Amino acid sequence: MGLLLRQRALTLADPNPDQLPDGSLLAAIDIGSNSFHLIIAKTEHGEMRTQEVLAEKVQLGAGLEDHHLSQEAIDRGLACLARFAQLLSSVEPLRIRAVGTNALRQAHNRLDFTLPAAEILGTKIDVIYGREEARLVYLGVAHTLADDAQSRLVVDIGGGSTEFIIGERFEPKRLESLQMGCVSFGRDCFADGVISKENYRRAYDRARVEVAHIHYRYNAKHWEEAVGSSGTLNAINTIVTHNGWSEGGITRKALEKLEKKLLTFNHFDDIDLDGLSENRRNVIVAGVAITSALFDILGVEHMRTSPGALREGVIYDLMGRLSHEDVRERTVNALVQRYGTDQETADIVERRCGMLFSACRGAWKLSDEDGDLLLWGARCHEIGMAISHKHANRHTAYLLRNADLPGFSQEEQESLAILTQGQRGKLPASLLEDLPKQQRRKMLYLLAILRLAVCLKHVEFLEGLPAFGITADKFTLSLGIPEGWLENHPLTAVELEQEQSTMAKLDFTLTLN
Amino acid sequence: MGLLLRQRALTLADPNPDQLPDGSLLAAIDIGSNSFHLIIAKTEHGEMRTQEVLAEKVQLGAGLEDHHLSQEAIDRGLACLARFAQLLSSVEPLRIRAVGTNALRQAHNRLDFTLPAAEILGTKIDVIYGREEARLVYLGVAHTLADDAQSRLVVDIGGGSTEFIIGERFEPKRLESLQMGCVSFGRDCFADGVISKENYRRAYDRARVEVAHIHYRYNAKHWEEAVGSSGTLNAINTIVTHNGWSEGGITRKALEKLEKKLLTFNHFDDIDLDGLSENRRNVIVAGVAITSALFDILGVEHMRTSPGALREGVIYDLMGRLSHEDVRERTVNALVQRYGTDQETADIVERRCGMLFSACRGAWKLSDEDGDLLLWGARCHEIGMAISHKHANRHTAYLLRNADLPGFSQEEQESLAILTQGQRGKLPASLLEDLPKQQRRKMLYLLAILRLAVCLKHVEFLEGLPAFGITADKFTLSLGIPEGWLENHPLTAVELEQEQSTMAKLDFTLTLN
Repeated sequence: MGLLLRQRALTLADPNPDQLPDGSLLAAIDIGSNSFHLIIAKTEHGEMRTQEVLAEKVQLGAGLEDHHLSQEAIDRGLACLARFAQLLSSVEPLRIRAVGTNALRQAHNRLDFTLPAAEILGTKIDVIYGREEARLVYLGVAHTLADDAQSRLVVDIGGGSTEFIIGERFEPKRLESLQMGCVSFGRDCFADGVISKENYRRAYDRARVEVAHIHYRYNAKHWEEAVGSSGTLNAINTIVTHNGWSEGGITRKALEKLEKKLLTFNHFDDIDLDGLSENRRNVIVAGVAITSALFDILGVEHMRTSPGALREGVIYDLMGRLSHEDVRERTVNALVQRYGTDQETADIVERRCGMLFSACRGAWKLSDEDGDLLLWGARCHEIGMAISHKHANRHTAYLLRNADLPGFSQEEQESLAILTQGQRGKLPASLLEDLPKQQRRKMLYLLAILRLAVCLKHVEFLEGLPAFGITADKFTLSLGIPEGWLENHPLTAVELEQEQSTMAKLDFTLTLN
Repeated sequence: MGLLLRQRALTLADPNPDQLPDGSLLAAIDIGSNSFHLIIAKTEHGEMRTQEVLAEKVQLGAGLEDHHLSQEAIDRGLACLARFAQLLSSVEPLRIRAVGTNALRQAHNRLDFTLPAAEILGTKIDVIYGREEARLVYLGVAHTLADDAQSRLVVDIGGGSTEFIIGERFEPKRLESLQMGCVSFGRDCFADGVISKENYRRAYDRARVEVAHIHYRYNAKHWEEAVGSSGTLNAINTIVTHNGWSEGGITRKALEKLEKKLLTFNHFDDIDLDGLSENRRNVIVAGVAITSALFDILGVEHMRTSPGALREGVIYDLMGRLSHEDVRERTVNALVQRYGTDQETADIVERRCGMLFSACRGAWKLSDEDGDLLLWGARCHEIGMAISHKHANRHTAYLLRNADLPGFSQEEQESLAILTQGQRGKLPASLLEDLPKQQRRKMLYLLAILRLAVCLKHVEFLEGLPAFGITADKFTLSLGIPEGWLENHPLTAVELEQEQSTMAKLDFTLTLN
């Protein structure tokens, strides 16, 4: 996945950037709040052809209380992944991507799940933000639709969140993720699975309030057709078709008939509807309430459904990453553009980071992904200047931590934030203390490189640097500086000295000789 | 000063927006780290004519340790302001502006000074950020220079900070403020006033490191002439001219001669130089070190000086505010532009705020300035959406608190941040608890208005609002809503109910009838 690094930093060794050959196997795992999905696909002329599909209704989100995942839910999830893992042995680890959505976004103890899960799958779990989820859903859906220029609203009702996207062709234009889902609303509005008019009204009203917040940007004025993704909307479509209430999609009238029918049952377990699979019984009522609310508020009259979903989107995104079309690359460039960073210094720092990285990566066991992160951090290390010169590094970190960055996982955003916040000045141990140990070490290495590049940028800008010797060892970096150079550059000498003592506090040795 | 409010919110009663007639008296007080200045000026065809000038070397910054102003320094400062106040009786309070710079920016206990100072002067003290100081300095200097299109570097060495501005005509293009000043460097690098080569070198090196940070944006490639403002640079100019070391400005050579001469003295008190007033003896050495460093790093060969300074800039800025050319207005519009706020909703919320404000201002004793703040807050309440929809109100507050906002004081930025952060959702008491009591009450009123406007914006956007009756009393706001309207708008009914209970927690009563 780290091909970009090689593309960008010409100083890095790059014997053979492997393109993604036709027929490559790729896999995506969607760790959702309601279901887990596994898809294995083969690439074929830039499209994917599904090879294997697995889905299990784990209901991870049902085990979430007060931002805490219960041990039972964690165990259910890990058991499911163990079953998925069996199928994954045929796929190269770098061609597998696992993403976690709302339940893991919400869970403060998410590491209790993601660390063992990564062990089981042999690849890390990327917990993604709601808008990133929306982007990937759109990607998955767009590939199932005719490539016409119609603007469309895509809706994906998940277990814990619902994504709204307006897009054209393969381009999402507006992305939104709201905190409402068929698992969470089912649990909160229908205590013990009891169905009543009041409970239904409560769910419907709550959904209306949520959707009202995005009304003015997502209502029917802004798109030509509505497309539903997700199990819930596909299930609703199946039911209304089976029952002859509508054809070729969900209509407002058909929804009303379904509502009426559902209210004749007293409990989730009693629901008996043509076309509804048993394991959807406890989410369908909340799902219909949400659907009905969004039809009313956004003015949807008709919605067809698509089999494309998050998992397909992850596959297409992965194909891009493996073929030099990493959307994260575009995101970082857009960020730099938006905040008007000084291009010249950013380039200098990025090049210097690339050089230091290739000299140290072996000794420090850094991966291509680590290098990508470092160079992205270097490229946007000054965006905070757009807010203010004062504490600019903190502003950069704030933006990288909080902005919607298409393609990035939460963890990657957090890493970029830590990296850029620590780009200069003091380096408090607290900056790294919340990270798992392995990650902490990696970040310390990346920080050592970025800080050195930032420290040298002024002199480099003025006159270029002499050829330095660079040797790296565990927690050690030695710069072999030509004799006499430091004496002639007292400013840099002072700054490097400061840097030595700053890094020493984190047990990292920087030597100059 | 609150004329904008009337200009913008047509619903506000405005019988006679008073223009600023020729011959009006205006006053500015510059509460600096080294000196305090008072200037009283008369307007004449859009320019100012100085009437009275007072300056006292209070050295407020010398009483600053660990971000704490000593009581002695506070007393010195207040005594000086009491003398200034005598002269101010002839000027209308709304035509006086007092600004505080670096010493007050740094002091965590600044309220111990600013509250009694406001009592003495009859007007509040605006503590301004470094870049805002730079902007005002430029304004003061630009009015003393020929109106040619040359781009110029303006430097102002203050007691605690040094401002750098590149501008053309009356437009500053780049603004910077560095933490170095002749009082702070004098204190830190020349212990007990002892002059030595080592001490001098320390001050010079520290200044070089500081200036190096802005080298690439401020070096000689970026401007055609250099102009010095401030007492220090004018003093240096006087000395080198008196001694015949240069003419019509400060040159590198003349600076060297001055350095050499200064190093022949062993103590600040011994300094004896043609053209140097006695009360500059303990800041001149550090001032020369700073000047020398910035000449070297930025490549300045020649610098002329200008009598224009912060105080004149404040006067010109005040003239603008009083004549419908408030730079803060431009700043807010630029902010909205930059972060691409949805114009339609912002307008709706701003208009609704204006209407509520004019209905409540009498009962709540709100001033025009309060109204300005409210409408600015309304206009940019959604800028945080550019960072992310999630926690958008917090992002708005972050930007308003941390961005360089030309024309705004720190307190105004903080008020805007509090206001926009509290625009919706929970309203924790902690949001207001750091404010002085009077301010807290005022902010609660403004929050009540903004929140109501935000709460109503969705329905307003969809269909407009019916004519509401509005009655205000102390900590009470009653909305007279037409009968039956709430029943037909259950969503708004729910939200208004939530709003009632949120405000009740802060002892504010919102009634609907």
